[in-house]
Amino acid sequence: MIGRLNHVAIAVPSLESGVATYGGTLGAKCSEPQEVTEHGVKVVFVELPNTKIELLEPIGENSPIAKFLEKNPVGGIHHVCYEVDDIIAARDKLKAEGARVLGDGEPKIGAHGKPVIFLHPKDFCGTLTELEQV
Amino acid sequence: MIGRLNHVAIAVPSLESGVATYGGTLGAKCSEPQEVTEHGVKVVFVELPNTKIELLEPIGENSPIAKFLEKNPVGGIHHVCYEVDDIIAARDKLKAEGARVLGDGEPKIGAHGKPVIFLHPKDFCGTLTELEQV
Repeated sequence: MIGRLNHVAIAVPSLESGVATYGGTLGAKCSEPQEVTEHGVKVVFVELPNTKIELLEPIGENSPIAKFLEKNPVGGIHHVCYEVDDIIAARDKLKAEGARVLGDGEPKIGAHGKPVIFLHPKDFCGTLTELEQV
Repeated sequence: MIGRLNHVAIAVPSLESGVATYGGTLGAKCSEPQEVTEHGVKVVFVELPNTKIELLEPIGENSPIAKFLEKNPVGGIHHVCYEVDDIIAARDKLKAEGARVLGDGEPKIGAHGKPVIFLHPKDFCGTLTELEQV
């Protein structure tokens, strides 16, 4: 069912330090920061030849990554995202097998403008897992 | 400096449950389990079109992932691995910039038979980061 690894998301306390690490120390190509206000994050895309790393900085106290950074003040891997062809078919298969979809279970429009769902870490090897329809 | 994302490593309490999740629920292609005794792990490769996920189960109490699983009993993302052309040049550049290389700083032969180093999570966005020479 799952296809490509679309991205690995790494929460960082500031994009400036994240870009210093990934663009500077590790010498990867980084995009300009983009605000995705409706998702409560500012994001930089680290472009690797086969996938991307997304560095996420929270916007505001209600950002979905604010609590994660309270527990992990230097940052950390927040989630992985796999591509699927049909998000509704994927969701229905997963639910039928007892996996928990976060929120109300309906796909939302994600940071890339495409439908996404998030799956409960406890059902997926302790890993917050996003599926994105491509 | 860094090239492709070689793999994302996910520690799991048992490969059986990891394969049930990735091969079963998520429908990805999984390899047969392989013991990598010198690294204290059994591993299953989840083959995605653009990269791979490595599911790691500890072998023995001294396994490098045993402590991680004590803190994260359902599993979790353990590290990410990026490819580099020259591991010595990469290490020397990173050390010159103040980044910490784990262990004695000398590349070891990793689970794929290639030279690897591990970098301190606190210097890399809270993420245990492996570099592999390809």
